[in-house]
Amino acid sequence: MTTMPNSVFDPSLDLELRREVDVPPQLVWRAWTEPELLKQWFTPAPWKTTECELDLRPGGKFRTVMQGPEGEEHDSTGCVLFVIPQKLLVFTDALGPGYRPNASAFMSASVEITPTATGTLYVARALHKDAEAKQQHEEMGFHQGWATALDQLVALVKRL
Amino acid sequence: MTTMPNSVFDPSLDLELRREVDVPPQLVWRAWTEPELLKQWFTPAPWKTTECELDLRPGGKFRTVMQGPEGEEHDSTGCVLFVIPQKLLVFTDALGPGYRPNASAFMSASVEITPTATGTLYVARALHKDAEAKQQHEEMGFHQGWATALDQLVALVKRL
Repeated sequence: MTTMPNSVFDPSLDLELRREVDVPPQLVWRAWTEPELLKQWFTPAPWKTTECELDLRPGGKFRTVMQGPEGEEHDSTGCVLFVIPQKLLVFTDALGPGYRPNASAFMSASVEITPTATGTLYVARALHKDAEAKQQHEEMGFHQGWATALDQLVALVKRL
Repeated sequence: MTTMPNSVFDPSLDLELRREVDVPPQLVWRAWTEPELLKQWFTPAPWKTTECELDLRPGGKFRTVMQGPEGEEHDSTGCVLFVIPQKLLVFTDALGPGYRPNASAFMSASVEITPTATGTLYVARALHKDAEAKQQHEEMGFHQGWATALDQLVALVKRL
């Protein structure tokens, strides 16, 4: 078994959120893989995730619908690529369900969860096709957005 | 384990070559997965496959360089998606090694190999993002090209 995305991570092309959080890895995994939980933390407020479908196997559908404060919607259907239960989830928007190519691609992403003495090391990565796409993602607010979503995830699982 | 690409096959979007051949499945698998063999059959003559790299695991690199009779080259670097040894290989050009999105996508493809009483049922499929891409692939000669390549594969493995 191999965690391929790590082997190609390139700081000139890709983005990473790496943080230790004080909640158990099992709950972080549940928050990512149970759609009813994911909808509660995935999008930094005031945006909401109004729909989520996740078929947690290679080739499976990963769809989210995000809704903005003005009612604007972003509907994205991607594909699960690689799963190590409790440890690693890799998905992409370059492909749809069953690996069919999508009309456009923005990123592939991995979420890696590692137990620590007091909680979880959380490493989320976004891989892009070129430096321009990375820069666009930074300007869209990758660092603040993914960090705020992780805060929401931690707050959620502490209430479970 | 699941053969996801089959579940989404859509005749209005996708293309298929399905044929029974009188060589054993083990040799068909070798012809697809050993680069030195693949180079000998993959491209209908007078085109040649001059280079092949295949890292046979999810996220692994699948690169081929094809050379035309006038010396023109087509260099494609894709990504292995799913492998069931001796049975199923799925790959795409929508992603590169480590699942990084490519700048453009043409197809995902699957090759499924099933033993029969006298040889192998060979099912090769190309999945496209839309009907236009399917039509483009047909006009490029999908049916004749993939059939001729399979003839070359069969002739090769009979000499092994």
